[in-house]
Amino acid sequence: MRKLHIMVHGTDFGFPLLYAGGFHNRTTAIRLGTHSHGEGVELTYVLKGNTGWQLEDDARSLLLQPGGTLSMVQPNVPHCGEQNVIRPCWLFWFIVDCRIDAEKAATGTPFSVREVMNLREILQKAGNCTVPVDSHFAFYVHRLIAALSDTSGNPWKEAEVRNLFSLVMMNCARFFSANSNRLDKDDFARRAAAYMQGRIGKRYRVGEAARECRVSPTAFCKRFKRETGQTPADYFQRLRLTEACRQIARERISLTEIAYRLGFSSSQHFSRVFKQYFGLSPREYRRIALGGTQKQS
Amino acid sequence: MRKLHIMVHGTDFGFPLLYAGGFHNRTTAIRLGTHSHGEGVELTYVLKGNTGWQLEDDARSLLLQPGGTLSMVQPNVPHCGEQNVIRPCWLFWFIVDCRIDAEKAATGTPFSVREVMNLREILQKAGNCTVPVDSHFAFYVHRLIAALSDTSGNPWKEAEVRNLFSLVMMNCARFFSANSNRLDKDDFARRAAAYMQGRIGKRYRVGEAARECRVSPTAFCKRFKRETGQTPADYFQRLRLTEACRQIARERISLTEIAYRLGFSSSQHFSRVFKQYFGLSPREYRRIALGGTQKQS
Repeated sequence: MRKLHIMVHGTDFGFPLLYAGGFHNRTTAIRLGTHSHGEGVELTYVLKGNTGWQLEDDARSLLLQPGGTLSMVQPNVPHCGEQNVIRPCWLFWFIVDCRIDAEKAATGTPFSVREVMNLREILQKAGNCTVPVDSHFAFYVHRLIAALSDTSGNPWKEAEVRNLFSLVMMNCARFFSANSNRLDKDDFARRAAAYMQGRIGKRYRVGEAARECRVSPTAFCKRFKRETGQTPADYFQRLRLTEACRQIARERISLTEIAYRLGFSSSQHFSRVFKQYFGLSPREYRRIALGGTQKQS
Repeated sequence: MRKLHIMVHGTDFGFPLLYAGGFHNRTTAIRLGTHSHGEGVELTYVLKGNTGWQLEDDARSLLLQPGGTLSMVQPNVPHCGEQNVIRPCWLFWFIVDCRIDAEKAATGTPFSVREVMNLREILQKAGNCTVPVDSHFAFYVHRLIAALSDTSGNPWKEAEVRNLFSLVMMNCARFFSANSNRLDKDDFARRAAAYMQGRIGKRYRVGEAARECRVSPTAFCKRFKRETGQTPADYFQRLRLTEACRQIARERISLTEIAYRLGFSSSQHFSRVFKQYFGLSPREYRRIALGGTQKQS
């Protein structure tokens, strides 16, 4: 895919339910500091690569977002890239307007006024969270990006964008309505995350984690995967690397010291894993996080 | 896919632009005699297998419709299955309402009133014809059939059906607007078809056909494929077999005699080719065409 950087407003093509939306496929990391959107809920979908949001006032503090999941941040919730950095990735995002009245919001959509109200209610009720999506969703998003970047003078471009955006939003409502039911159920995820967090710099043990969560080790692994979309090992690795980001960005200690604190066998090993995971080295990360710019790759 | 037989009206789910639509995946042939639709243009898409329409008052008399193409029949044009038979196939069809006013027709769609007027105008201007489609179209149709047959109580079912039907219609307008430009250009297809028609029962010769159409043999084959979606050899075979259908259904002569008249080397060879092509034997075809029923396969 050629380099793309798209941003549109729904009102540009008769679709006020969309406050704004966009896409970029950057091969370099960028700074994105704390900000919030008063206009509505923001949905973000990573088509390729990895990135994440950090929320200011949320217990979980980070919306994990490995490639292929969908995350949502509620109106007026301050958030930023992980340690103010958006990693190189293919990022699609849009904001569903939650201020304008439902009748106006239904303009240019196939939705009834009632359906628009339901859609916005489901999104707002689900809170700040991340859900897995299906392959059909990925297809619609790809088609939508193709329509948005179409410069052939296609007379159906605007209608196609409205149509595909509606389809994408409707599918988001479906995914999040399934999710919001699940999140209310119990505190398994919270306990598991707390245990993992306490083990950073040491090793985590599945048996111990399972006891902490009052389930068998087999049930722990299965349920962990279902609830977070990741295996415990992947999750733990990510947690360590996220903590590495935090220390790189905030503390003026050497990268070797950070590698040691987080239980990596050497600074070379740390660098290799970090680069594999984030697409840039700890050194480059420090430069960007502290306000420098990254060389074009 | 499980056996499906779906038929809906657009007014059932707040989508009056759709007069009616449906899908079936039959494994047996059925009779479908001459009829017409006053409500609007009928679009038909074969997902799997082959079938075709015969038009009463059209020079080309048959809309070829091999799997993967889209055909259209204008309002009030009498048509039937080939020799009154619809072969076993996966058939998706719908009728775009051309009577109701555009403002009403835009209800439940992402289209503006202007866009609905354009859409209907393009479809009516393109006449009775067949166009190739792209793989995205196939995906949308598959998703639409899945939505139509969804019995899970999904609260978004109606919105999804409206959304996907709109997307399908919009893509039809794109395909047919490209097509209508092409058809006006010249009479290549007419000349080629007339030559082929005159050779039934004999052999056709590419060199001769090319001279008839005033192009080189290479250009003839290339252009023929582009305009009809088939090679000259496939087209000729289909023409012979269609003529076979006509004779089987209308004349009380033996199948052996028909095989001989149409230049097949033996009645066994004729039967084998016929069955391969139509999914039923000449004998079964005669029974259905003359008003009998086919055994369930």
